Amino acid sequence: MTMEKFEGYSYLEGGICAAEGFVANGLNCGINPDREKNDLGMVYSEASCNAAAVYTQNKVKGAPILVTQKHLEKTNGKAKAVIVNSKNANTCNANGIEVAEATCELLAKEIGITADEVIVASTGVIGMPMEIGPFASGIPKLVKGLSREGHEEAAKAIMTTDTVKKEVAVEFIIQGKKCRLGGMAKGSGMIHPNMATTLNFITTDAAVSTEMLKKALGEIVQVTYNCLSVDGDTSTNDMVSVMANGLAGNNEICEENEDYRIFKQALYIVMLNMTKMLAADGEGASKFLECTCSGAKDRETAAAVAKSVVRSNLIKCMVFGEDANCGRVLCAIGYADAEFDVEKVNVELASPAGAVATYRGGVAIEYSEEFAAKVLAEDEIYINIDLQQGDASAKAWGCDLTYDYVKINGDYRS
Amino acid sequence: MTMEKFEGYSYLEGGICAAEGFVANGLNCGINPDREKNDLGMVYSEASCNAAAVYTQNKVKGAPILVTQKHLEKTNGKAKAVIVNSKNANTCNANGIEVAEATCELLAKEIGITADEVIVASTGVIGMPMEIGPFASGIPKLVKGLSREGHEEAAKAIMTTDTVKKEVAVEFIIQGKKCRLGGMAKGSGMIHPNMATTLNFITTDAAVSTEMLKKALGEIVQVTYNCLSVDGDTSTNDMVSVMANGLAGNNEICEENEDYRIFKQALYIVMLNMTKMLAADGEGASKFLECTCSGAKDRETAAAVAKSVVRSNLIKCMVFGEDANCGRVLCAIGYADAEFDVEKVNVELASPAGAVATYRGGVAIEYSEEFAAKVLAEDEIYINIDLQQGDASAKAWGCDLTYDYVKINGDYRS
Repeated sequence: MTMEKFEGYSYLEGGICAAEGFVANGLNCGINPDREKNDLGMVYSEASCNAAAVYTQNKVKGAPILVTQKHLEKTNGKAKAVIVNSKNANTCNANGIEVAEATCELLAKEIGITADEVIVASTGVIGMPMEIGPFASGIPKLVKGLSREGHEEAAKAIMTTDTVKKEVAVEFIIQGKKCRLGGMAKGSGMIHPNMATTLNFITTDAAVSTEMLKKALGEIVQVTYNCLSVDGDTSTNDMVSVMANGLAGNNEICEENEDYRIFKQALYIVMLNMTKMLAADGEGASKFLECTCSGAKDRETAAAVAKSVVRSNLIKCMVFGEDANCGRVLCAIGYADAEFDVEKVNVELASPAGAVATYRGGVAIEYSEEFAAKVLAEDEIYINIDLQQGDASAKAWGCDLTYDYVKINGDYRS
Repeated sequence: MTMEKFEGYSYLEGGICAAEGFVANGLNCGINPDREKNDLGMVYSEASCNAAAVYTQNKVKGAPILVTQKHLEKTNGKAKAVIVNSKNANTCNANGIEVAEATCELLAKEIGITADEVIVASTGVIGMPMEIGPFASGIPKLVKGLSREGHEEAAKAIMTTDTVKKEVAVEFIIQGKKCRLGGMAKGSGMIHPNMATTLNFITTDAAVSTEMLKKALGEIVQVTYNCLSVDGDTSTNDMVSVMANGLAGNNEICEENEDYRIFKQALYIVMLNMTKMLAADGEGASKFLECTCSGAKDRETAAAVAKSVVRSNLIKCMVFGEDANCGRVLCAIGYADAEFDVEKVNVELASPAGAVATYRGGVAIEYSEEFAAKVLAEDEIYINIDLQQGDASAKAWGCDLTYDYVKINGDYRS
């Protein structure tokens, strides 16, 4: 994925530890029988953080989601640490809450904070019994190894069917102070966010009030993760959390002023790039898919159309097969949950190889199949839709549907 | 598929021609370059029929849908013939309406009826130019070959990626008169009906008013086709039509009396079996999937849950892979668009090999993986969900997601 440039913001290394004062670590504690693979990760800030999170809207919620919600309510949005495991979602089992709470207590005791200051998350198979044992044996070593360089091990610890770890960080200036915001995400399958998404943890050294963190996160999630679909399945364990420890030294952002705007843009840049990384690494994906819908009467309409297109199995297969069967794009536009005139719609297929117009005013137009095949042979495919009935636009992201998606998910538990 | 038995109704051969007075035919007229495959079919009743239809709710509607709607409005629900082609959906092209209207006129002239008495439909690739030529050359031969035995050729003419033709018919008694109701359907991919479904044509010799036909069709489509999903994509060309020529000799059914109930049940039996046949022959399907949700507070809740499960790509892959990863069933139950308590939910996997309980009260329970594997090795898989919070239930149908689905749809146009 190419990272888009934004004026005033520069990308930097360090992921979840790019911001001042955050340390992290990851290791294998035995939840994953493959001891080469990390299954337990953590992030820690000695300085107390303002914190906010958004959670899956699935009615079935993982035990860690419920525990984290309770903690952030109890502390009025304060946290110092994140602990997260992969391979077992700790969901729909008999002792989930118990294990999630005991995990927070073990970590709190080891590091000298309170259990309420811990954000806990899990990802993996749903409905598996969970034991406290692996956490008890892993946490002391995990804490001992905390370091600024630990971000990579932590990012690896949250990978499930991900083929690459996902980290992004940016640097920016608020009130003349250098600030950093970075994060890590996992994703791949069971992705069709509704208010939240796959696991994603973000840290910043900018000083931002809990209320403003909540507001910024709520807005940015709508235009990033909530416009991402890998397979239409909304996970039970989705969570995005953001922690701000204030070590950059700016005066705390407590209202929607220019400083807030600068901070929110940093959050947008990191979450946008994560979203694209998740789409490109969708389960079994061979191609990244971005759909832009412009010319809509409002953003909701544009987003409904763009999401309908990236979710369509038939379009995902068409992209995989490199077959410019654009009638399927019109079909998915037509069943989008929004009101507009389908007889004005233009459609274009694009990629680094060029662009080819396939529909004008709702009607198929002639184009070179040979050139369309060249466009679709690339790894990044863009479907551009112009409704021609307004000024609003929106983007949505996804990937192709491949043999590998079927293979991975026909045998997920082994 | 095994056909369920219903007292008072017996299955018979003859499909769309099982009812007295209906003749049919099918042939290749050159729309499909493979001359071995029928691409044009028709049905005809010399006696005028009361007729009703339901159509796709996709905002992009095929030209034939618009023409049929206009015809049935103009005649106040009267029709004598159906003409239908496959391989080209006659949708999103420049001259669709023109060609659909010209086709009706050609047929009407050839057979000696008015164009308004023709129901026209198309299925195939969206956004392809359509010529009247093949219809002009095919219709005379099509009409000449009309016969009671022509139902098979007609059923073949509407096949696209279908691997088998779909015909069902039943016999029943109204007012001491022997009545028949039968039909043909096509399906396979782009199936996620909303108010209507894939192409389906039904005929009966029972005498039923247009108003009662409309009412029965509207009700039955909700509990049959609208609970079927192959891939979540709602087609642009879906249509179900029903024609009643009254030759059985019963007094016309004009109100919701016992006769109406008997007729409606016949329509249900035919549409239910068609729905199951479509699910079993879903694109690339290797297994038939039926989800029953019981114990719901109302039918809407039960249907929302059952549909959410059969639509889930992850569950479809799990069924293909014969992997009892039932956490995914809980996940799909959890994001169903309905309100209920997830902590009471029981889940069972079943097939001709037996049944295995996997979740009780929202929590995974122990079961024999070996036996679960045996259950899932069968070709007909049943997911039974009990919400334990009411008396309502609903069923939904689908199939597994396979390599072949991806293959077929990666290269649909060739």
